[in-house]
Formats: sequence, structure tokens, C-alpha cells
Amino acid sequence: MEQAENRAIVRVDRNGRRDQEDLVIREHALTITLNDRQFVTMLCSPSDLEALGMGFLLSEGLIKSSEDVESFSLSDDSSEFKVYVRGDILSEELFAKRAITSGCGRGSMFYNVLDALDFQAVSADAKVSAQSITQLTNEVQSMSDLFRSTGGAHAAALCEEDRVLIFKEDIGRHNAVDKVFGECLVKGIEAHGKILLTSGRISSEILLKAVRRGIAIVASRSAPTSLAVQFAEKAGIALVGFVRGRRMNIYSNAYRIE
Amino acid sequence: MEQAENRAIVRVDRNGRRDQEDLVIREHALTITLNDRQFVTMLCSPSDLEALGMGFLLSEGLIKSSEDVESFSLSDDSSEFKVYVRGDILSEELFAKRAITSGCGRGSMFYNVLDALDFQAVSADAKVSAQSITQLTNEVQSMSDLFRSTGGAHAAALCEEDRVLIFKEDIGRHNAVDKVFGECLVKGIEAHGKILLTSGRISSEILLKAVRRGIAIVASRSAPTSLAVQFAEKAGIALVGFVRGRRMNIYSNAYRIE
Repeated sequence: MEQAENRAIVRVDRNGRRDQEDLVIREHALTITLNDRQFVTMLCSPSDLEALGMGFLLSEGLIKSSEDVESFSLSDDSSEFKVYVRGDILSEELFAKRAITSGCGRGSMFYNVLDALDFQAVSADAKVSAQSITQLTNEVQSMSDLFRSTGGAHAAALCEEDRVLIFKEDIGRHNAVDKVFGECLVKGIEAHGKILLTSGRISSEILLKAVRRGIAIVASRSAPTSLAVQFAEKAGIALVGFVRGRRMNIYSNAYRIE
Repeated sequence: MEQAENRAIVRVDRNGRRDQEDLVIREHALTITLNDRQFVTMLCSPSDLEALGMGFLLSEGLIKSSEDVESFSLSDDSSEFKVYVRGDILSEELFAKRAITSGCGRGSMFYNVLDALDFQAVSADAKVSAQSITQLTNEVQSMSDLFRSTGGAHAAALCEEDRVLIFKEDIGRHNAVDKVFGECLVKGIEAHGKILLTSGRISSEILLKAVRRGIAIVASRSAPTSLAVQFAEKAGIALVGFVRGRRMNIYSNAYRIE
């Protein structure tokens, strides 16, 4: 499916107005069906939809590894992603839980969500040079076709010190990150101890996705939020924001950036 | 509550690294309780939380006007927004519905969501000059303190041709728009036929919020998505993207921009 489409637009500038064509980023509705029950409808870019579906289930904590999944398939028209998970990890509660949370926490409990998360702290040895962060960020920016052509996409990438392992784009910054982790699961790529780059703001929800996968370093050319910084500090993640050229701000666990 | 907080960071640039302070945008968890049942937890900037709560209920289609609301209050620590709505508009279905939708639609039905929406088409008379769009956009940008100090905020504003009526900021672009419409409801300001400016991308969900309130013109300095353009076309909304200086792209109902 095409990621963008041509539309007739009216362009206005100092010379007046004229009709022309413009490339608009495509927004697609994907429904996830879990053991034959509709679970959620996501709005996304129509690429890597299997990775998106699996990544979403990982990020929501519904599945922990590929062992929880019996089978999955995407419908021919790409509108439905059907997943069958082991019966014992599904419950009525799980469907009900989505009724009262947006993301991952609720009420006053939200601030303690890290304590409730069963995450494995990353070894202190996972380090990277500031120069690598700059180089990887440049590399990811140059890979971002969809953003260049439509101005509407976010990118996310899983990296090692010297190379980009997985690169994904989507209209949503959450979806781009979910696609990265979903692909890890589908292809058996280990995310633990590695670097997550994202083009968007780093909110607590993005940071928690990284915590769940054991990421050591999260970096973005955009800003982090206060809650993301708190969670990163506690989880042992180096959180790096405003990566622009050779400049960057390190908000937590700065010893990981050499 | 402060909208940003000082954090100790390590800044890296071509001169090396040094410790300093940086202002980080605050992310706050707000739980909405609907007739004494937890309904959702939102992550947001801790300002205008009553407007946010009301705007969220409006955008989700749970309430249609202030007549649906019996009372509302914000807890002293700003963590809980309690709303009591008329009993007859609440149902078990409504709580269950949130289990299977992310936003406003589900599955193949999503593309017909406009037909299901009971919206009142805006009169063809609602028009504005391109020059006004430019001026209003500049005005809104200059109002955006939080973005300037933290780099992490979105802005949204309700405008008439020659002035900004309501201006709101939030870490989330959805929240900023919800705050605008929530304030309309609380203060009895009519949004019908007016202009909505947003700093973020215009996705279908943002556009549908505007449709529900009878907005005539939606404009942003960012990109729209294909689904937003389709919905705007059908709903009679002029959708304007990439407003930068005196340039802009009009994606639908261009006759409204003179």
C-alpha cells in the first residue's frame, strides 16, 4: 500500500494562489483482533503492520515474548490484524482494563508504574560515545523518506554503537516505536542493552516502552518530559534530548554517554 | 502547579561536556472519574485541567453540551477530575466501548465515522482571508511561552477573523485542542463557524474534534494526513496546512480562504 497520496491543493504565497498537486501522508485504520475479539483500532501509516500489531501488544504488556503468541495474520486489505495468544494470558480483566487507562497507568498509581513493571535493569556496561549518537541520528534522518516527502512522519530506530539495526516510520511517534519492537519480536532480534532513537518528544509512555524491552539509551532530537526523565533515572536508562549536530543534552545516567 | 521544572543535565557540544540546569516540561497524570467510576487517565500539562476534562468528554462524544453535566470538580492535588453527568447518558456500553476503540472509530466502520457523527454542517458564509490565517498563526506562536522555554509543547487556539479567543498549551496536541473546546463549554463560548489553529499535525482524530464543534476552518503550520483531508472535504471544513510566513497549502473547501 502506498504511504502517501497525491491530492489537488491550492497553494498560497506572495505571488497569489494556484492549483497544484501535493503529496499527503496516508492515514490507515488497523483493527487488532485478539483471540477473535476486537481489541483496538489504531490509526497508522500502512507499512509494517504485523510489526505494529505485535509491538502494540508488547508495549501494552499483553504479551512478553513470541512464546505467548500462537499465530498472527494480516487480512488481504490490511484492515485487520488477527492474533491468537495463549488462552491463559487473556482475561476479561484485560479487556476491561483498557476501559480505564490510556496507555499504561491509572490515577495515583501511575507514578509507581515502574515498581509494578517487571523489568530487568540494564548492565552498567552498556555505553556509547556522544559521537555515535550524533552519527546514528544523522543516519536515521537521512533514511526518513516519508518525512522528507510529506513532512508528516515520525521515525524510530533500534541501533548498536556503530549501526542502525531496525528503522521504521509512521504518522504516530508511538506507532513508530511499536513497529521497531514488534520487528524485534518477529525476527528474534534482542533489544536489551541497545539504543532507541526516536524523532519525537520523549514522553513517559515512550520511555516505558523502552524500559519494557531493556533499552539502555534513548535519544531524540526533540524534548523529553519531566516524567520520562524521572522514569529513565530510576530504570538506569541514559535519556538524551535535543540531539542536533554535535550538541545534545543528557538528562539521566550520563555515565553511559562517553 | 508549575508547567516546567529545572533539572540537572549534562550538556555536550563541540567544547566538551559540562553540568548545567535545563527547564524540562512537566508531564502530569490526571484521572477522570465519571459518576464515581474511574474512566481514563490522561498524561498532560498541569494547566486548565477542568477545561481538559470537559473537552475530553466532548471530543469522545460522551457529552454534547453543558446541559449533560450536573457538576464537576478538580481535586486539591490536581490528580483527579470528578464529573457527574445525567444518568441517562451513561451506560455500561460506554465503559465497554472504550475497550475497543482508540479515539473514535473501529475497524472498517472507521471510514464511515462521519456518517455516524451527528454534526451540523457549517454555513458556506464562514470565510477568512489568507492574510488573517498568517496573522493569527504569528500571534499564536508569539503566545507560546511553554514551547519557547522547553521545546516540548503544542498550542491550540480558537479564533475569529481578527482575534484569538482562546489559547491553550499542552504536551499533547490532542490535549491542547480538548482544552480549547472544554473552555468553550465551561465559559459558554460558541465554536460553531470559527477557526481552529493547532501547532501539530492534523490527523483524522484532530479533524473529527473540529467537526463535532462545527469549526469552519482548521489551520496548522504542520502537515495534514490523507484521512483528515477526506473528512474535512466531506464536512465542509477548509483544511490549511504548512502555514509558514505568507505561504500555506489549502487541502479542502478552498473557497473559505479568500
